[in-house]
Amino acid sequence: METKDGATPAVKQRVIDAVLAITASRGLDQATMREVAKEAGVSVGSVQYYCRTRDDMLVIACRHVMDRIVARGEALPRTGPVGSVVRAYAQEFLPLDEVRADEQRVYLAFVARAAVVPDLARLQHEFTARLRAACAEAFRLAQERGETHTAFDADVAASATVAMLDGLLVHLLSDPEGMPGPLAIAILDEHLARFVDIGIPV
Amino acid sequence: METKDGATPAVKQRVIDAVLAITASRGLDQATMREVAKEAGVSVGSVQYYCRTRDDMLVIACRHVMDRIVARGEALPRTGPVGSVVRAYAQEFLPLDEVRADEQRVYLAFVARAAVVPDLARLQHEFTARLRAACAEAFRLAQERGETHTAFDADVAASATVAMLDGLLVHLLSDPEGMPGPLAIAILDEHLARFVDIGIPV
Repeated sequence: METKDGATPAVKQRVIDAVLAITASRGLDQATMREVAKEAGVSVGSVQYYCRTRDDMLVIACRHVMDRIVARGEALPRTGPVGSVVRAYAQEFLPLDEVRADEQRVYLAFVARAAVVPDLARLQHEFTARLRAACAEAFRLAQERGETHTAFDADVAASATVAMLDGLLVHLLSDPEGMPGPLAIAILDEHLARFVDIGIPV
Repeated sequence: METKDGATPAVKQRVIDAVLAITASRGLDQATMREVAKEAGVSVGSVQYYCRTRDDMLVIACRHVMDRIVARGEALPRTGPVGSVVRAYAQEFLPLDEVRADEQRVYLAFVARAAVVPDLARLQHEFTARLRAACAEAFRLAQERGETHTAFDADVAASATVAMLDGLLVHLLSDPEGMPGPLAIAILDEHLARFVDIGIPV
């Protein structure tokens, strides 16, 4: 499909990549239509075809980031106790390397806007509901298999786990001095290990 | 002290209040010099006297929010087990009412910028280090008094607690549907209660 603004899936991908790159390196403030067009090497019209506002940019960038993280999670080997898969999946969300840090800077910009824009809060609800459901399902499977350390409500434990992940993510990005990667992993492990067998001693 | 721009402590307070009000209700994007001056009922020159950039605005607003929360925490009655004081103090950070939601929207905007601006990351480190130290000190006191449920490293538990608080804060603000206030309190209580006696059965 080609439009007068040259909108194609390839152009859309370049726009998404440009939004990700600018938001991750210089912050959402700098992701103007003109800057995104320049970074993507496309016309301002092409950018506007996909995102009319800065919030539209955040939405397409954030959806892309979420899909990417979930795809990595789905590709993980399903071996060992359920808790060990949850652990590996959860680590895909933590900004422990530059790729994930760039992804999560976009997510953090999105979340700060979702706190003031109801349309974005609805999308954030969609994202977190999906994560909580996947985590609760895994916890229930661990319960069925007897890979648990205590009796617990799988839904509450899943909400706690997703909140803990987001808290660690915030500190890894905004206070790398106070929250080095190994500490974040140790805290995540200790959090998970009190519910389920994560396949390693904590 | 009076300057040619009419800068006084009272004007500074009006500027801070205006930044808080705009960031909380419409988002950081809308907190331009002109909008802040209009909201505060002062000249643009007065706003510029206190904050030359939008990041300066975030810094003074965020410092103010942190001081306010810490002052409320310090004013809490020191009765019952140490864990019950930690619990009450921690709840002062959670956006469980409109005043605290407005405060934390400013913090969330600040944190998203701290993830891309090193100067702000240094200030965020100062904030979180202060919280972690206060929490670790309380946990150590609980350990000395035998008000604990397990052996644990007070510093790691404090880092985990501050991360959990920030995660709950993010979800309360950005996904109120998925993280209602009572669930956030239940998750916080369950988190704290596994370390220390919080004065209520969980």
